[in-house]
Amino acid sequence: MKFQVLQEKLNKALGLVARVAGGSTSLPILSNVLFVAEKNRLKIAATNLEIAITLFIGGKISEEGSVTVPARLLQDFIATLPNDAIDIEVRDDTKMNISSGQYTANIAGVAVDDFPSIPVIRSDEPLILGAKEFKKALQQTIVASSNDEVRPVLTGVYLHVDESSLYIAATDSYRLAEKRLGPADKEVSLIIPATALQEVLRVIDDSEESIEIHYDDSQAMFRYGETELVTRLIDGQFPAYRQLIPTESSSSFVISRSEFANITKVASLFARESAGSITLSVSEEDQTVSIHSVASQIGENTSRSTAKIEGGGEVTLNSRYLLDALNVMHSDAVAFRFSGKLSPCVITPADQESSDYTHIVMPLKS
Amino acid sequence: MKFQVLQEKLNKALGLVARVAGGSTSLPILSNVLFVAEKNRLKIAATNLEIAITLFIGGKISEEGSVTVPARLLQDFIATLPNDAIDIEVRDDTKMNISSGQYTANIAGVAVDDFPSIPVIRSDEPLILGAKEFKKALQQTIVASSNDEVRPVLTGVYLHVDESSLYIAATDSYRLAEKRLGPADKEVSLIIPATALQEVLRVIDDSEESIEIHYDDSQAMFRYGETELVTRLIDGQFPAYRQLIPTESSSSFVISRSEFANITKVASLFARESAGSITLSVSEEDQTVSIHSVASQIGENTSRSTAKIEGGGEVTLNSRYLLDALNVMHSDAVAFRFSGKLSPCVITPADQESSDYTHIVMPLKS
Repeated sequence: MKFQVLQEKLNKALGLVARVAGGSTSLPILSNVLFVAEKNRLKIAATNLEIAITLFIGGKISEEGSVTVPARLLQDFIATLPNDAIDIEVRDDTKMNISSGQYTANIAGVAVDDFPSIPVIRSDEPLILGAKEFKKALQQTIVASSNDEVRPVLTGVYLHVDESSLYIAATDSYRLAEKRLGPADKEVSLIIPATALQEVLRVIDDSEESIEIHYDDSQAMFRYGETELVTRLIDGQFPAYRQLIPTESSSSFVISRSEFANITKVASLFARESAGSITLSVSEEDQTVSIHSVASQIGENTSRSTAKIEGGGEVTLNSRYLLDALNVMHSDAVAFRFSGKLSPCVITPADQESSDYTHIVMPLKS
Repeated sequence: MKFQVLQEKLNKALGLVARVAGGSTSLPILSNVLFVAEKNRLKIAATNLEIAITLFIGGKISEEGSVTVPARLLQDFIATLPNDAIDIEVRDDTKMNISSGQYTANIAGVAVDDFPSIPVIRSDEPLILGAKEFKKALQQTIVASSNDEVRPVLTGVYLHVDESSLYIAATDSYRLAEKRLGPADKEVSLIIPATALQEVLRVIDDSEESIEIHYDDSQAMFRYGETELVTRLIDGQFPAYRQLIPTESSSSFVISRSEFANITKVASLFARESAGSITLSVSEEDQTVSIHSVASQIGENTSRSTAKIEGGGEVTLNSRYLLDALNVMHSDAVAFRFSGKLSPCVITPADQESSDYTHIVMPLKS
């Protein structure tokens, strides 16, 4: 195996695949990254058995072959090399010799025999989505997914069709985020691990227009340009969350998103010992939203902002959830709807364009 | 107590003093920051009993007084406020009310009675040093100080006069850094804790020309503009390190500092499991320095650079110490002198201007 490749390309490729390698100590070969040189391209792959990433990059292949080498050492070494041509040759089946200008290294690899095969998922009719829109939708929903493995379905993001629309949604049962991705003419129902989608987010670098999602009953494959990411799907039934979204609310206000985030952030400082608990008081008369929080023994604070208000009342929320919601929204103004202290609060962008996004936060008991 | 102060000024002041507060759990009041409003200025101070920082900032004082309040909450709150006037009033002796525009907070303080008094150190003839030069000299020497409390004097930086020159030096016994600060006409011998000097480095923000060092037998005070930092001194005898600096070496080379740092960094990647051990091989014939390192079982590497070489040979070093030395130097080229595998290596800037700096690294046994 012998090839020449540009440092910049190899470095970028290793940056994406090497993150997946190395999680497992029980199966040391999973710390390695797979190289396959064939025809005029180089295939680079890594897997942690849950997620596998494969990249294809161009290079001058003078001798075909394959090998696996320790991901971390290789990545660190390649990253420190200057942006120049790198010559790589594998001798005695597993010894990788790397040279570039004044730098040479030998890294002991392992034969590919024990490396797990990367699953191949090909749908005849994959979902094809705009990459930019999908990335934004992922960022806006993944934040509401759960870390708690007790309910595995909630650690996933739900991609599904309802009433001829494709939706992406996530909930940790305390909050919920949903984005409509567009019209759809077939049934889709995939629960994709949020951890895999975090890697998908890293892969989408705005170099490509669209992303393809191939899937079968148990796995999905995201193809973005020359990168393929395969993940298992989460088995189970996602909660019928859409019926939880309130259609009507007794009170609402429209407020500058940045101003709302500022006063929430200030209030959160005093809410550290009360699990982030802050209380919104909304007065139609004053057209003012005020947020109050108490740090027992230490102090309390109140921050105010003007808003366009209908109705009024109080509701207590986790400040972190509210900040998370405001941080993933992009509109200048947001609409906040609520109905007293117990019903879910609904946060949506206040402009027409991004009206496909809904974020729900459950109130705290106060 | 009642005053008005600009957010920017107060925020900057708290950023400096609050770092010192809060280390102690046995004496809760040390987590507080002291406010004293008198005449037309506000004194803000914090102490951890080892280091005390006092700042004076201008403000409109409408009622004199003093109080202490929790440093972290106050700092976080002030930092999130917009850059505007802040009104602060203390009611019932300890309740601090803070208001600025739409933000208000009440923070429960503690009366000043239990707050440790900040020592006052005044020398008739303090050392007065150029602030920029002193900052650079600190950065260049502090890196060689020790973290190991077993030999307390080595956790300090030694400011002393020898043969009518003022020197600053530090050593952890594996390496040594010394900078000549200029001529001196009196005796000085202070061992200043490196931890205190790290704070002094934060205080020196290039707003002032010079820094004053006042001292007595047990304490020193650094005055920089309106900021005063008091620290205890370390008791003991600093090693007579100057006799350890080799005056002659059998081999030497002059090399580009950035190139030397690059090849050392690459070599360090393969030296992670051997405590950073890398071997320099110097050949007068080839005019080449090469660095070799081995990661047992995994691989090895060699990186080369051209250099102006006299003599030759090999020496094994800790790559981190070499990188630390190169990173605190500023000249384009450095001179490296050594005498075989056992004698100390000497690294100095290769230009005339910064010839007052010497860095010594002890070889590793190879």
